[in-house]
Amino acid sequence: MELKTRITELLNIRYPILQGGMAWITGWEMAAALSNAGGLGTIASATMEPEELILNIAKTREHTANPFAVNIPLRLPSSQRAVEIAISEQVPVVVSSAGSPGKHTETMKKRGIKVLQVAFTADMVKRCNEAGVDGVIAMGMESGGNISPPEISTFVLVREAVEETDLPVVAAGGIADARGLVAALSLGAEGVQIGTRLLATQEATLHSGYKQAILRAKDTDTCITGRTTGLQFRVLKNMLATEIQNIEKAGKGRDEIDSLTIGSLRKAAVLGDLEWGSVMMGQVAGMVHEIKSIREVLDDMIAGSIQEIERLTKYIV
Amino acid sequence: MELKTRITELLNIRYPILQGGMAWITGWEMAAALSNAGGLGTIASATMEPEELILNIAKTREHTANPFAVNIPLRLPSSQRAVEIAISEQVPVVVSSAGSPGKHTETMKKRGIKVLQVAFTADMVKRCNEAGVDGVIAMGMESGGNISPPEISTFVLVREAVEETDLPVVAAGGIADARGLVAALSLGAEGVQIGTRLLATQEATLHSGYKQAILRAKDTDTCITGRTTGLQFRVLKNMLATEIQNIEKAGKGRDEIDSLTIGSLRKAAVLGDLEWGSVMMGQVAGMVHEIKSIREVLDDMIAGSIQEIERLTKYIV
Repeated sequence: MELKTRITELLNIRYPILQGGMAWITGWEMAAALSNAGGLGTIASATMEPEELILNIAKTREHTANPFAVNIPLRLPSSQRAVEIAISEQVPVVVSSAGSPGKHTETMKKRGIKVLQVAFTADMVKRCNEAGVDGVIAMGMESGGNISPPEISTFVLVREAVEETDLPVVAAGGIADARGLVAALSLGAEGVQIGTRLLATQEATLHSGYKQAILRAKDTDTCITGRTTGLQFRVLKNMLATEIQNIEKAGKGRDEIDSLTIGSLRKAAVLGDLEWGSVMMGQVAGMVHEIKSIREVLDDMIAGSIQEIERLTKYIV
Repeated sequence: MELKTRITELLNIRYPILQGGMAWITGWEMAAALSNAGGLGTIASATMEPEELILNIAKTREHTANPFAVNIPLRLPSSQRAVEIAISEQVPVVVSSAGSPGKHTETMKKRGIKVLQVAFTADMVKRCNEAGVDGVIAMGMESGGNISPPEISTFVLVREAVEETDLPVVAAGGIADARGLVAALSLGAEGVQIGTRLLATQEATLHSGYKQAILRAKDTDTCITGRTTGLQFRVLKNMLATEIQNIEKAGKGRDEIDSLTIGSLRKAAVLGDLEWGSVMMGQVAGMVHEIKSIREVLDDMIAGSIQEIERLTKYIV
């Protein structure tokens, strides 16, 4: 038994589980592993040079015959070039984030690319309707990494998104297991995007210290930096995060923060610097207790969710 | 068809729906209406003088034969007296919040009172186990009113709470309809507590302007005040909230905030001052579009949730 929704149909995937694009982390290795396991793997283009992105797309294709996505944060200057590459390489799916959904959507769709847009508010979901995207990823404030103000939770945002659009909605933020998947479906989503849970996998291409930090983290161990600058991230509350928050409290500006954070994600992901790196993770890290293979994570979520739906029917008398 | 869980059994109620205790708002009128409709009505004792609390308990009993609760925020100096009254009046259920669950629990349980404790983190759920309460209300940061740092979302907190305890868990924050109820059950909760949805009801004893503010609010219209003082509230982002946030940004202290906020909840709830009152509401206000009767709200949630569970089974192929 499996779960089939409009998302599995739209993206031509076996399981309604998408991989969150995570800069410095999700290249071809994780994307291919995810797609081979039945979900939708995602190459994060944010920090890639053009030739690197082209190589990652080629390598993904070499290692999986299944559909995959490229995530393009539209606010970055490099996004224009990334869109051109997505088109010229004919990638199956683009997940556009951090910017207006209107930009580039029509061009990409004309070339047969499915476009999903990340939204943080109900208003943004409305703009997705106008932009003509194929689906919406409703991302709650419990997510790790870049989260936009005004910090709507997954529980509220997914419910609102489904009301605002007839497009299929994918829930992101706070989801790490079968119960999260079923809760997302209950709210009206037809798929989930997971990130933090995938960081604690055998295939995760990140420093082992970072993986251990996920396993150790409690629900209360993350915080949000950048509330005063508008460029917000949810990260492990380490020395770097505390220092940024102190700079913000002192009313100092973006420059001082930038001088600390440039290269900080690479420092965490590649070098394993858990104190002065940006150790991005969602609140749900508190629920992640063991390293699994990506295939196990996905299989467990799907098998578990069928049991969980059966559990729910037992409350009805 | 109805929903039966350990919460309906524990509290001897028909529907697994609890009313959030809301100071200045949920007195005997709303508590009795909620309990008559099959849920668990709650008298908010926070702002009541002892004789007022005794009167509200008597009036609730006069208007319903069903169980009801008294909410006692333990951090208030008046809580000791409220606990004594709950015991002497033999109320069926006490919801203790804003304080250590250990305090008073044993005394109340010995007198046959069921005790539920509000928790904001997984650690607090652990302390509930030690305190011997009968159930835990896991309250996410999307809730209106008093929410404690570090702002864990309902989606994450409920899932964690269920892992930390064998006690029945009630989900609070972000829930206003059947889909929210089923999502809460999916995460492992066995009941929900709702607040914001009940403010937009015919029976809600609050100023009509406040009710209209709930109907008008979008998901993005609330904000959190008090992050610098630790005494945090989610409220409508009005002039008062903006002014408090400005005071906080300027690094000024609790005294200046107190001078603005003393009496501000009454100002909103009783006098309908939407700009200089504390218009408390959750993020889910964006999902509340019409005034209903309390009975309709509850009946719709239950009937809808049975349909929603059936909808979920259709994703399985």
